[in-house]
Amino acid sequence: MEQMEKDLLKSIADISGFMPGSAFNLRKNGEGVERHSTPNVKIVTKEDKPGIDIIVKAYTSGESVHIPVILTESGINDMVYNDFYIEEGADVEIIAGCGIHNDGCDTSQHDGIHTFHIGKNAKVKYVEKHYGEGSGSGERILNPVTIIDMEEGSFAQMDMSQIKGVDSTMRKTEANLGPGAKLVINEKLMTHGHQQAHSDVTVNLNGEDSVVQIVSRSVGKDTSIQVFHPIAVGNNRSRAHIQCDSIIMDQAKISSIPEIAANHVDAQIIHEAAIGKINSDQLIKLQTLGLTSDEAEKEIVDGFLK
Amino acid sequence: MEQMEKDLLKSIADISGFMPGSAFNLRKNGEGVERHSTPNVKIVTKEDKPGIDIIVKAYTSGESVHIPVILTESGINDMVYNDFYIEEGADVEIIAGCGIHNDGCDTSQHDGIHTFHIGKNAKVKYVEKHYGEGSGSGERILNPVTIIDMEEGSFAQMDMSQIKGVDSTMRKTEANLGPGAKLVINEKLMTHGHQQAHSDVTVNLNGEDSVVQIVSRSVGKDTSIQVFHPIAVGNNRSRAHIQCDSIIMDQAKISSIPEIAANHVDAQIIHEAAIGKINSDQLIKLQTLGLTSDEAEKEIVDGFLK
Repeated sequence: MEQMEKDLLKSIADISGFMPGSAFNLRKNGEGVERHSTPNVKIVTKEDKPGIDIIVKAYTSGESVHIPVILTESGINDMVYNDFYIEEGADVEIIAGCGIHNDGCDTSQHDGIHTFHIGKNAKVKYVEKHYGEGSGSGERILNPVTIIDMEEGSFAQMDMSQIKGVDSTMRKTEANLGPGAKLVINEKLMTHGHQQAHSDVTVNLNGEDSVVQIVSRSVGKDTSIQVFHPIAVGNNRSRAHIQCDSIIMDQAKISSIPEIAANHVDAQIIHEAAIGKINSDQLIKLQTLGLTSDEAEKEIVDGFLK
Repeated sequence: MEQMEKDLLKSIADISGFMPGSAFNLRKNGEGVERHSTPNVKIVTKEDKPGIDIIVKAYTSGESVHIPVILTESGINDMVYNDFYIEEGADVEIIAGCGIHNDGCDTSQHDGIHTFHIGKNAKVKYVEKHYGEGSGSGERILNPVTIIDMEEGSFAQMDMSQIKGVDSTMRKTEANLGPGAKLVINEKLMTHGHQQAHSDVTVNLNGEDSVVQIVSRSVGKDTSIQVFHPIAVGNNRSRAHIQCDSIIMDQAKISSIPEIAANHVDAQIIHEAAIGKINSDQLIKLQTLGLTSDEAEKEIVDGFLK
């Protein structure tokens, strides 16, 4: 593996190569290049369309699955369907992510359609990082679609972040919660240059005592544009808490269009959103401690997105 | 004036008849029936369409204007355009409101299009109550449109409430704020039966240091449906705070779709919304004090909308 590829893997999945001993699938420039399953986690190529099925056996515990995607050639347009079958009572961590290195002048694009079938009482922690780099003028585009179907008593935590270098993203997330299911979504997003980011999240609280918590934090720099559209629909006795905080800098534009709907008398839904610039007291304090204004700004932004 | 008409006036404008000595316009069943101007507040019939111009002279102070509308016949469809010209430095209170008494089986509808031209440093307090009653099967419909253009340093407080008996309402409010303008909107809404209420509020913070505060409180009972869609757009150094709290009861459905957009680095926008049922601790406490469950519920709802 080239050093540049290793660096990409480090940025998106915190690994430096293949992961012997644990379930693993590396997709590079639109093709699978390395894979291994374990007795409890099977990774199988789809037969009808590009992509894989990841099957986690019932009551599996303590395993992790890495499924990174990297694009290193300019002009690649990759679309992939990944289905996760997390069987009853399994407890698993999934590390996904996509890194694009584009030194060319053509657009590199990866659209991942991820569908989670989370069984009764199963637990999933899903970590997804999106990252772009490269000296070319070619755009780096990521359009992830995430669908989450949660059965009774299941739990899912989705940590999804886009830290740097993605020119355009259209994120779509849809979750359907069964009885007692609990979903936590932590979204982090930073845009710079003339990047654009849209994020639509829809959560349907269908089951009794289902719970969702969404925390979205974003920073918009330069002339970038961000649009957030989280939707929580309480169709049963349920609770939802959505919190969106954004820091706006330079000539960036940020909008937030949440939608909360209670279709049941015992649905309890709370939404909070704030858009504002960096706290000037904090800036001054850090500068008093010896940081330049740029360093102080970086410190605050990093802390906010941590 | 009949007693029923007097009662309607009491409900919507807290008056029991004409208001000699102050500016006044009563519209009944689609026609003006009584009017008087004062030296500082002129009320003039529009020539191109139904409605009136209300002109408040510059630097007028301490005057109030009553412009109630009542519909007492079934089957009336009344549309009226009222323009308010509040000249520089004037300080005025405007009491509007519409009461419908419908004993028939035909729909009674009043659509008021109100446009406020608020001059430099002028101050307006606007109170609008909507109320319906009557034993007929005919619907009572109110579709108010309110447009507010605010010049430099002006202030407006809009207290708009729909307390009871309005079968269907589509409220549209749009405000454009100049430099240093401050707008406060207090919205109160109660729906019952199979009523429907939609409220769209758009505030454009165009001027430097413009400020808006919106507090919306609502209660949805029975099978009624409420939809709120407040929008705050910060196009300059400005501040917005939107707060929507709703109590949901019975089989009611409530949704809230706020939209906050910062198009300027010094725009600071905060939104909070909560939908939930009546606090059960409060209910139990009031029942312990001797109230029946219905009385306790009424007490809490009245307190919430006060």
